[in-house]
Amino acid sequence: MSYLQHITSPTLLIDEKICRANLHRMAQKAARNGMELIPHFKTGQSKAIGAWAKEYGIKEITVSSIKMAAYFCGNGWETIHIAFPFNPLQIRKLNELSQNQKISIQLVNSEVTQLLAKKLSSTVGFFIEIDAGYGRTGVAVSDFGKIEEILRISQTSEHLQFRGFYIHAGHSYYAKDVAAIHEQNIAALNMLKDKYSTEFPNLVTRTGDTPTCSMMEDFGGIDQMGPGNFVFYDLTQAGIGSCTKADIAVALAVPVVDINPEKRTILIHGGRVHLAKDVLIEPNGEKNFGEVVMLSENGWDIPESRSFVKSISQEHGIIQASEELLQKTHVGDLLGILPVHSCMTADCMKAYLSLNGEWIDHAEGLVTFNL
Amino acid sequence: MSYLQHITSPTLLIDEKICRANLHRMAQKAARNGMELIPHFKTGQSKAIGAWAKEYGIKEITVSSIKMAAYFCGNGWETIHIAFPFNPLQIRKLNELSQNQKISIQLVNSEVTQLLAKKLSSTVGFFIEIDAGYGRTGVAVSDFGKIEEILRISQTSEHLQFRGFYIHAGHSYYAKDVAAIHEQNIAALNMLKDKYSTEFPNLVTRTGDTPTCSMMEDFGGIDQMGPGNFVFYDLTQAGIGSCTKADIAVALAVPVVDINPEKRTILIHGGRVHLAKDVLIEPNGEKNFGEVVMLSENGWDIPESRSFVKSISQEHGIIQASEELLQKTHVGDLLGILPVHSCMTADCMKAYLSLNGEWIDHAEGLVTFNL
Repeated sequence: MSYLQHITSPTLLIDEKICRANLHRMAQKAARNGMELIPHFKTGQSKAIGAWAKEYGIKEITVSSIKMAAYFCGNGWETIHIAFPFNPLQIRKLNELSQNQKISIQLVNSEVTQLLAKKLSSTVGFFIEIDAGYGRTGVAVSDFGKIEEILRISQTSEHLQFRGFYIHAGHSYYAKDVAAIHEQNIAALNMLKDKYSTEFPNLVTRTGDTPTCSMMEDFGGIDQMGPGNFVFYDLTQAGIGSCTKADIAVALAVPVVDINPEKRTILIHGGRVHLAKDVLIEPNGEKNFGEVVMLSENGWDIPESRSFVKSISQEHGIIQASEELLQKTHVGDLLGILPVHSCMTADCMKAYLSLNGEWIDHAEGLVTFNL
Repeated sequence: MSYLQHITSPTLLIDEKICRANLHRMAQKAARNGMELIPHFKTGQSKAIGAWAKEYGIKEITVSSIKMAAYFCGNGWETIHIAFPFNPLQIRKLNELSQNQKISIQLVNSEVTQLLAKKLSSTVGFFIEIDAGYGRTGVAVSDFGKIEEILRISQTSEHLQFRGFYIHAGHSYYAKDVAAIHEQNIAALNMLKDKYSTEFPNLVTRTGDTPTCSMMEDFGGIDQMGPGNFVFYDLTQAGIGSCTKADIAVALAVPVVDINPEKRTILIHGGRVHLAKDVLIEPNGEKNFGEVVMLSENGWDIPESRSFVKSISQEHGIIQASEELLQKTHVGDLLGILPVHSCMTADCMKAYLSLNGEWIDHAEGLVTFNL
């Protein structure tokens, strides 16, 4: 029985072969640079994908919340890193998890460091997050006062173990010059390592984003890389140049519910609650919420003539169809949509269907109210 | 114990009093117009909120997918209407549900009508969806050929029961002149009713959107109203003029994880996976992903000086803080965020915390893989 026969509503397909190739390629690049690959699992959020990752030598992972950490605990990871300025309301939960699982966290201020120094009951590693220059979060790279205050407070606790410095250059997603951002990251991390490695000889440096990790070859001595999105990639990354469309490992399967031949539009069951609202702008100014691929028994194919989702509401999507697509498509068919931002689409969908017709778990598929 | 003590991570608060007042006010307006209020529960997606609605005389509801219909089945609703062009891959599920629950659906083409005429095993009502003019979905109001084709095919089946015409003027969300859209809806529905009521004396007309239902007083003879968002409202609706900010019934409680006094920013745990990505543009061009309210034992208060979330990523939000907010706020505090689009925030969060500290269910909190 084909996986296609399982589908009656919007369903996120995963092509295991593509996903494994993405993991394998990045693991090889890390190895070539003598780096450890510690992928950010905010994208896949799946123990099953974690099992594939282990086959490429991946031993540690990163997550973006303690809830996601809880999902991966006890799953054989050496360390789970929570790449979010630690939320001080979750110390109790952190103490609970770190009893049985090595955890590391990120610190950006003395207030939270102080609280942790007082209240931690097990050992927890920490990175100091450095602001990569786009001002979302982190300590400014030259704010040695704050860095040293965090270090000084952490040393009052036997449970807080300094691991190193972490930069996530999220602005590389929007940047014209990914190489320049990459050079800045290398310079910042190497400067910090030089400055503090006498006192902390085991400190490591880590950088994170998918564009630099995908497009750069030389990592200038950074110890660890932590990209996330690369495990699936998406149209945004293809646009940046991090991947080709053939490297995108997930596609949303959507039922066709109506066709308007005059307007050349196809109405699909597939909207914001499935794809999320991420959008690319076409050269002619039109919006693109995802691109159509043709589904078959073996997965999907990218058609020669492009068609894309031009508008979405809560459950609906409207495809502006090429002549080729219009000819081929009937009400009741299934189409595939390559997502603009796969992390968000996966978070919306909360489960994957493999091309073998098996359901693959996602952390958010397990509902827990309050962590 | 205050509800506040339950919160350690982003949590969607619901103020039952405000929510009930919204339901009550709309039910009174419907009654004044001799209309039936059949709210669209895509916003609340909650049996508990359904129980409140019943106290204001509401007997039928609308949902946006068969999955959501399944969640509300057997919960005492006279009819559950699925306001989405019926997805022909879900006939089996429809047959299953309609054995024990009166269901109505929407039709927009002959292909799906034909399929249903062949395959339905229980009686299902249907509305013909009329394109309100913004071209998302529905039969053009003057396309009598298509309307009559759908009616003719439906009459070949003992199970397909024509109920009437449905318009959802989703474009009123973005329109300068809500009254003009409202007049168009009335004219279209009355014309169709006049034309077809001799043959179908029981046909009803229904209109849907929150802006027209909130702002208009006279509904010109339309039989039923089906707004959704009004049950919570949000900043978008307050901006349109459908409500005041004091009518917004939900707020996202978020932990403060860092404060930058120089930049006057507050970093919160609360991002796109919680609020969704809806955004309003401030008069000065800045983005607004949600507005700050102050939480207390009894709910929330709107502060005199506005502060709003100026940027978000997957888990992070950055508030541009007023002087007042900056003075009052400390790392580890909780703030409230009024959402830009409450339907999407509720769909992201999948549960509500009442001001009594009780969890209130949301349809998506029950995970079912494939419906």
